[in-house]
Amino acid sequence: MTYSKFEDDAAVVAFVRAHTDQFTADEPLHVEEIGDGNINYIYRVKGNEGSVIVKQALPYIRIIGTDWPLSIDRIRIEAQVLQTEAMWAPNFVPKMYAFSAEESAFAMEDIGDHENLRFAFIERHPLPSLGEHLGLFLAETLFHTSDFYLDYETKKRAVANYINPGICKITEDLFFWDPYCDHERNSISPPVLEAAQGLWNDKALKIEVTKLKRQFMNCSEALVHGDLHAGSVFVRADSTKVIDPEFAFYGPMAFDIGSIIGNVLLNYAGQFGLAGPKNERDDYQAFLLGEIVNCWSAFHKRFTDLVAEKSDEPTMSQPDYVQTFLADVWCETVGFAGTEVIRRTIGLAHIADIDSIDDIELRAKSERWALALGREMIVNRHSISSPDALNAIALALPY
Amino acid sequence: MTYSKFEDDAAVVAFVRAHTDQFTADEPLHVEEIGDGNINYIYRVKGNEGSVIVKQALPYIRIIGTDWPLSIDRIRIEAQVLQTEAMWAPNFVPKMYAFSAEESAFAMEDIGDHENLRFAFIERHPLPSLGEHLGLFLAETLFHTSDFYLDYETKKRAVANYINPGICKITEDLFFWDPYCDHERNSISPPVLEAAQGLWNDKALKIEVTKLKRQFMNCSEALVHGDLHAGSVFVRADSTKVIDPEFAFYGPMAFDIGSIIGNVLLNYAGQFGLAGPKNERDDYQAFLLGEIVNCWSAFHKRFTDLVAEKSDEPTMSQPDYVQTFLADVWCETVGFAGTEVIRRTIGLAHIADIDSIDDIELRAKSERWALALGREMIVNRHSISSPDALNAIALALPY
Ligand SMILES: Nc1ncnc2c1ncn2[C@@H]1O[C@H](COP(=O)(O)OP(=O)(O)OP(=O)(O)O)[C@@H](O)[C@H]1O
Ligand SMILES: Nc1ncnc2c1ncn2[C@@H]1O[C@H](COP(=O)(O)OP(=O)(O)OP(=O)(O)O)[C@@H](O)[C@H]1O
Ligand SMILES: [Mg+2]
Ligand SMILES: [Mg+2]
Repeated sequence: MTYSKFEDDAAVVAFVRAHTDQFTADEPLHVEEIGDGNINYIYRVKGNEGSVIVKQALPYIRIIGTDWPLSIDRIRIEAQVLQTEAMWAPNFVPKMYAFSAEESAFAMEDIGDHENLRFAFIERHPLPSLGEHLGLFLAETLFHTSDFYLDYETKKRAVANYINPGICKITEDLFFWDPYCDHERNSISPPVLEAAQGLWNDKALKIEVTKLKRQFMNCSEALVHGDLHAGSVFVRADSTKVIDPEFAFYGPMAFDIGSIIGNVLLNYAGQFGLAGPKNERDDYQAFLLGEIVNCWSAFHKRFTDLVAEKSDEPTMSQPDYVQTFLADVWCETVGFAGTEVIRRTIGLAHIADIDSIDDIELRAKSERWALALGREMIVNRHSISSPDALNAIALALPY
Repeated sequence: MTYSKFEDDAAVVAFVRAHTDQFTADEPLHVEEIGDGNINYIYRVKGNEGSVIVKQALPYIRIIGTDWPLSIDRIRIEAQVLQTEAMWAPNFVPKMYAFSAEESAFAMEDIGDHENLRFAFIERHPLPSLGEHLGLFLAETLFHTSDFYLDYETKKRAVANYINPGICKITEDLFFWDPYCDHERNSISPPVLEAAQGLWNDKALKIEVTKLKRQFMNCSEALVHGDLHAGSVFVRADSTKVIDPEFAFYGPMAFDIGSIIGNVLLNYAGQFGLAGPKNERDDYQAFLLGEIVNCWSAFHKRFTDLVAEKSDEPTMSQPDYVQTFLADVWCETVGFAGTEVIRRTIGLAHIADIDSIDDIELRAKSERWALALGREMIVNRHSISSPDALNAIALALPY
């Protein structure tokens, strides 16, 4: 099968009409390509009132072209994961309307009244429920796809179903290798080079990163989103939606939780140098740390309740075991968050939270701070036993 | 497809003639059913000089019948694993001649000049190379099927290929659940009941066992044999062969190493009460502990060498990482060995090393000793940092 891009707007309209019942037959539809992402094609199809989003994957990365092939299977996985997430956390994901393997595309709910969390962070928007929503989303999706909930056969078939090698390889390289050596894919601002070189020579750090990588590669614990950075989260003051699970696979729960907490800390690092009055930035930093606490508390509470209510697996549901398990997940969360903080600072894919600081010296100060924090989180994760302990480290780390 | 048993000897002969070239066309062949195993049918087909073994799986357990269904996929897995093992450790497995999905059977080399390791142990046969052979077998098979050696895509496809849910479930129950509660499947001799009840009420133990179970269920690190007890190993003084990998799946390396070390310690426990002069039994116990050291040393050395020679995975091949990794594998090995020791003492499937002690009180002494050792190994595995440390615990434990 050769996959091709929707030829024109009419093809997108035909897809939506054939696969969804969101529009009446005679309603005029308007198509707009809206993707600000890198990998796939995203269209908004608007009718008289409603609208629908279409996402299409081609066997390569959109912004690079056929030079960087990427398996089309990711769109089947994304569509299935969106449906699984919708089953357990319907408030926190766009509704999936229809997937078609033939066009390697699916149609979903338009959540255009939400904004990208990364930009909400940069503009310091108040998001009073963010941490709680994320914690609930994580608890629901991770619990219900793990051995705590699924029977042994369903779980193991699911592991096979979501094997996603090419996609996982990207993470294996970008998170756990590039930043720890002089790799050509890295993007390092000159005033940070010395700090980066410090990481390359840090044997203890490299061993701990490799242990995290081993978990990422071998711990098939739950169906993780796999790319839960701030750009995959869309927010309103009262609502949170998680999109883009094309990196999903069976991996460690701590990877998802760590990815999003890493992004909160990256914005914290950026706030030192972003525009605006100091007290506003200070307040937002305090808000960010509070949301880390809220996210973990909500996750921890909901996960504990779910095990008590729904797990009939007699060994894993022992209450003492659940608490030990969650304590362990927290430490690994800190470690994975540290790898996200580091790879976004000197790896291939930077983020606007820090890159939009115009002054190169100010930016470098945030970057060096982030590298120091990330290192500390990875190496000492087993003694950082709570969100408060993590926050204390961030507060104590000199800027 | 409905699977049926070879109807008669002629059917077994026809299978061997059709699928192997071990015999000449006019050679008269004689068939004998030889299986002393529980699950499948085993035939020896003898010609004028040579012979061949045929193993056939049916969709249930042989000694129980259709009441206990078991997926036929296990024979496909066994045949593929035998071939993989033969690629990396050809001296340590019977040669696979041919597999036929249609008959759910395969033909393999007859290793009838070897004896079952369990009986060799019970009769205290000298086996000067046993530990070394097992260590080499483990290093070769585990290294070459892990991320240390395979590229990311091959490895992940292999994980899916070897998913073996019904079979893994048996281990999940028998190793990690039954012995830790009053389960009807258990088989507990009356004078050991109190000690068994001690385990059922031991919260710390049950948490550690569940952590091991989590690894068994979620750590898809290498293609493990999955059932490496003494009855799966056949020996001569100068040769060691591992058979019966029908429980193979992608799991933790430590599970295989721990299973066989657990069986060495079970025989050690049996030697206290088996027949024969005390000095002979003492000597054999000393020999057994020495083979644990030899097995781990051979594994450790060969694994380290293989990484240095053949791994081009830049993170996992860092020499310091390999040593940390192996130290970690050792501790989990001790834990898994402890679960094997316990489940063979009070669980469903006992072993002749202890069960053949006629005197019920003597037998119970060995059993209680095994339970105490197993508990110690599971709970304290993180501080039992070497085979010598493990052996010191066995030596110090009062009989
Ligand atoms: N359901 C939706 N409703 C509204 N807008 C959406 C929706 N899904 C995606 N978008 C818009 O399209 C953008 C790209 O979406 P998405 O991240 O899924 O694409 P991608 O090509 O996989 O990008 P990435 O490079 O992040 O992997 C989002 O940032 C968002 O602006
Ligand atoms: N290649 C071989 N050469 C000689 N004898 C063999 C061979 N394979 C198996 N046997 C004999 O058949 C017996 C049963 O083999 P095996 O353990 O593979 O069967 P099983 O039905 O899977 O048993 P289990 O109950 O252990 O799972 C062995 O103990 C051994 O005596
Ligand atoms: Mg994407
Ligand atoms: Mg068997």
